[in-house]
Amino acid sequence: MSARIDLNADLGEGFGPWRMGDDAGLLDIVTSANVACGFHAGDPDIMVETASAAKARGVAIGAHPGFFDLRGFGRLRIEDNPRKIERDIAYQIGALQACAALAGARVTHVKAHGALANLSNEDDAVADALARAVAGVDRNLVLVVMPGLPAERAGERAGLRLVREIYADRGYAADGTLMPRAMPGAVIHDAGKAAARVVRMVSEGAVFTIGGQRIPVTIDTVCVHGDNPAALTMARAVRTGLEAAGFSLRPFAES
Amino acid sequence: MSARIDLNADLGEGFGPWRMGDDAGLLDIVTSANVACGFHAGDPDIMVETASAAKARGVAIGAHPGFFDLRGFGRLRIEDNPRKIERDIAYQIGALQACAALAGARVTHVKAHGALANLSNEDDAVADALARAVAGVDRNLVLVVMPGLPAERAGERAGLRLVREIYADRGYAADGTLMPRAMPGAVIHDAGKAAARVVRMVSEGAVFTIGGQRIPVTIDTVCVHGDNPAALTMARAVRTGLEAAGFSLRPFAES
Amino acid sequence: MSARIDLNADLGEGFGPWRMGDDAGLLDIVTSANVACGFHAGDPDIMVETASAAKARGVAIGAHPGFFDLRGFGRLRIEDNPRKIERDIAYQIGALQACAALAGARVTHVKAHGALANLSNEDDAVADALARAVAGVDRNLVLVVMPGLPAERAGERAGLRLVREIYADRGYAADGTLMPRAMPGAVIHDAGKAAARVVRMVSEGAVFTIGGQRIPVTIDTVCVHGDNPAALTMARAVRTGLEAAGFSLRPFAES
Amino acid sequence: MSARIDLNADLGEGFGPWRMGDDAGLLDIVTSANVACGFHAGDPDIMVETASAAKARGVAIGAHPGFFDLRGFGRLRIEDNPRKIERDIAYQIGALQACAALAGARVTHVKAHGALANLSNEDDAVADALARAVAGVDRNLVLVVMPGLPAERAGERAGLRLVREIYADRGYAADGTLMPRAMPGAVIHDAGKAAARVVRMVSEGAVFTIGGQRIPVTIDTVCVHGDNPAALTMARAVRTGLEAAGFSLRPFAES
Repeated sequence: MSARIDLNADLGEGFGPWRMGDDAGLLDIVTSANVACGFHAGDPDIMVETASAAKARGVAIGAHPGFFDLRGFGRLRIEDNPRKIERDIAYQIGALQACAALAGARVTHVKAHGALANLSNEDDAVADALARAVAGVDRNLVLVVMPGLPAERAGERAGLRLVREIYADRGYAADGTLMPRAMPGAVIHDAGKAAARVVRMVSEGAVFTIGGQRIPVTIDTVCVHGDNPAALTMARAVRTGLEAAGFSLRPFAES
Repeated sequence: MSARIDLNADLGEGFGPWRMGDDAGLLDIVTSANVACGFHAGDPDIMVETASAAKARGVAIGAHPGFFDLRGFGRLRIEDNPRKIERDIAYQIGALQACAALAGARVTHVKAHGALANLSNEDDAVADALARAVAGVDRNLVLVVMPGLPAERAGERAGLRLVREIYADRGYAADGTLMPRAMPGAVIHDAGKAAARVVRMVSEGAVFTIGGQRIPVTIDTVCVHGDNPAALTMARAVRTGLEAAGFSLRPFAES
Repeated sequence: MSARIDLNADLGEGFGPWRMGDDAGLLDIVTSANVACGFHAGDPDIMVETASAAKARGVAIGAHPGFFDLRGFGRLRIEDNPRKIERDIAYQIGALQACAALAGARVTHVKAHGALANLSNEDDAVADALARAVAGVDRNLVLVVMPGLPAERAGERAGLRLVREIYADRGYAADGTLMPRAMPGAVIHDAGKAAARVVRMVSEGAVFTIGGQRIPVTIDTVCVHGDNPAALTMARAVRTGLEAAGFSLRPFAES
Repeated sequence: MSARIDLNADLGEGFGPWRMGDDAGLLDIVTSANVACGFHAGDPDIMVETASAAKARGVAIGAHPGFFDLRGFGRLRIEDNPRKIERDIAYQIGALQACAALAGARVTHVKAHGALANLSNEDDAVADALARAVAGVDRNLVLVVMPGLPAERAGERAGLRLVREIYADRGYAADGTLMPRAMPGAVIHDAGKAAARVVRMVSEGAVFTIGGQRIPVTIDTVCVHGDNPAALTMARAVRTGLEAAGFSLRPFAES
């Protein structure tokens, strides 16, 4: 029996009259979709449509909560009270659960977006807020985390089922965190190179740092993007590479 | 065994730094709270606090969805697509369900707010959108309706459990609808008079119109307000009057 | 000396991370830009960038106010108080004036957007709100109107300088109003046909209705679009056609 | 001739259906009003009403721009690009200028709100963004600053006319900055004590620190609050104290 792996991507990141990325294209590639919940992007209409399209293709549906910051797309770092952050996250998860229900689907996982994700990987209080929100809404939801960072530990403290992810197009620093985008090597633009690296990381169960070190980690899912044609090409290359290497592409949160 | 009746009121209608009405005062009077869900008022912080306070007093928690119109407090009539209205309502119900879960509570009912409520009492397409949203999210949710109007019929078509309400402080026109606020007799300001009228309507199972007609209807709950001290005084008078008349005040949606 | 005509289009209709239309392409074609002011689209960043790009090409800058309805892109019909509508419009004009000032430019005209524009062409009270807002902020601002409709008369009552526009891609009903989009012939898709019709209308100073009638009107500007490649092609064809017919393309509000 | 001093307060800090503070009460006390511009509070309706009420009482009208953060009331610290902050501030100033124009009034000054004010007192880049926005919109606008901090220096660099303010109810640290609210002595609650301290500071042209040091500064205006009855009582006491000490209360920005 072949080993399985999941591919996840952020979808439904439009708002009102605006759209972002090639959602239809991505849904033919990934096995899990992280759906924006209305705070940094997404609205009820887009959320139901995205859940419906994902369900039709057997793609798992996850909540992708972010800061209440539509204009900044949830990328602005906002210093807020962890208790309020917890409530904001819960609100967004519940909203998507209801939108998914209208589409005859259900939400299987949660992955934080943008500055909220960054803070949950830096600050234990924010990480705990994330984990408490997930556990408080539904203990059966799976939390997607980066291995070795505060959100993973918070999820463990909360007794959540966790799924560990790597990034297809990002370089890793010596400590296993993502390199800042401004640094050389932080973003991988070559689809073939990215795909080969993903296959190697998934096969060996390790991330490879910019300096060449090998850090063993559990890898359950690979994050890809679709916000421009090159990103979609890379996502396809990653999928093709993993399939060629014998992996079975399936949602981690398959019911 | 005494007959039972419910008193409901809208709560949690602040936003961010702003508050509206005396929620603590109302929670000592009513048996069901309709909680704003973030579109016309309310935010996750207020929603969790309100759910928590309601639960502590044994007050049932309902979703009070409105149009996406914070500045107009959901009172502006907006011509939108019924399919989008359905999705907006579902989103809000789910959001409150998750906030209630954080407070260790659960949502038992749904009552539309402001212009959305008005449209659901005038337009079958909007009424069906409301009923579909409730049924789509959770068939166990009870829908609060005014007897004899489109929302009631839509709820029946959707097979929902319905609860019929009367208004403590509003005059009824000859056809059983609420009189427009600008008309003489449309709003009752005398607490004693309002309480006596409510007791009579609930006891007889009928609304009394401005012209003196008696229209038999099912009455499960009485809507009161708390947005100013006089309103709170009236709410207290209504409760006291019903208790004095031998009614048992309990949530219609008691679990 | 050749007769002059203006071409106007809506620009800056993105928000936060989202963009709409080919603004750079349009700025090479039109002579007047109607810039969204933050209520239905646009944000301060986009507004300054758009004003700056327009100024660099000698394109006149106008305010394009809409309803406070980002999610509905200002297209939802909202029943609001004309006094509040007046204030909303003034707010948006002032906001753009300041953003234009940062770009070293100034606002020369005002054109209503979406449902606000539609209502100002149907309802005298809304039309007067629009005219009062413009006059109240700056009497030197030019108001763009459709000939023969309430906004034109309101502008005349307010003593504003008016500019009359025709639409390059829309069919006219027998009464000189735009045909509803759903009707056959309401939207012209053929660029060459649209360009030829515009040249004829501008040359003759008349609109031609779907039934073939000729209604003489003053025509100061032609509205084109750029929200998709076909629209941009049509805009180019209209400009080329007008130039070939000997018209001088210049902003109506040239200082 | 008696020395003159100004009293300023923040007004118009409601939104939609919500109000904050006793604006009418404050307008009988202060000589300059800082009016929220729609980003952290305020809407066009409130802005026009506030400008109109201020003008009727001879109170000067200033723009009180904040972060685009209605829910957090502009108090959340947001890490944004200074260029974008500059544009946000300009947008808000222009919006208020237009609303004031509808009220037959004009804007004389600018004072930053909440987290934006705090950052402009900590970070030169934000301070310069504030000063550039004011200068870019209208060089005749007066900028209100705290003496000795980055915003003052930025205003000087931009060549703006500056007005220095002290706070009636806040303790000063050894370096002349406001003490953090959580520290003992940071907030003065006794109206008589606050009034006496203000009179002494204004008379001597110096702030007195918590440790008893005297730091000479220029004082053009005193900031008071009105968000609760006690605050209003203190504002009245400060005015009465200054008048009793022979000061003439007048707007700094009187035309």
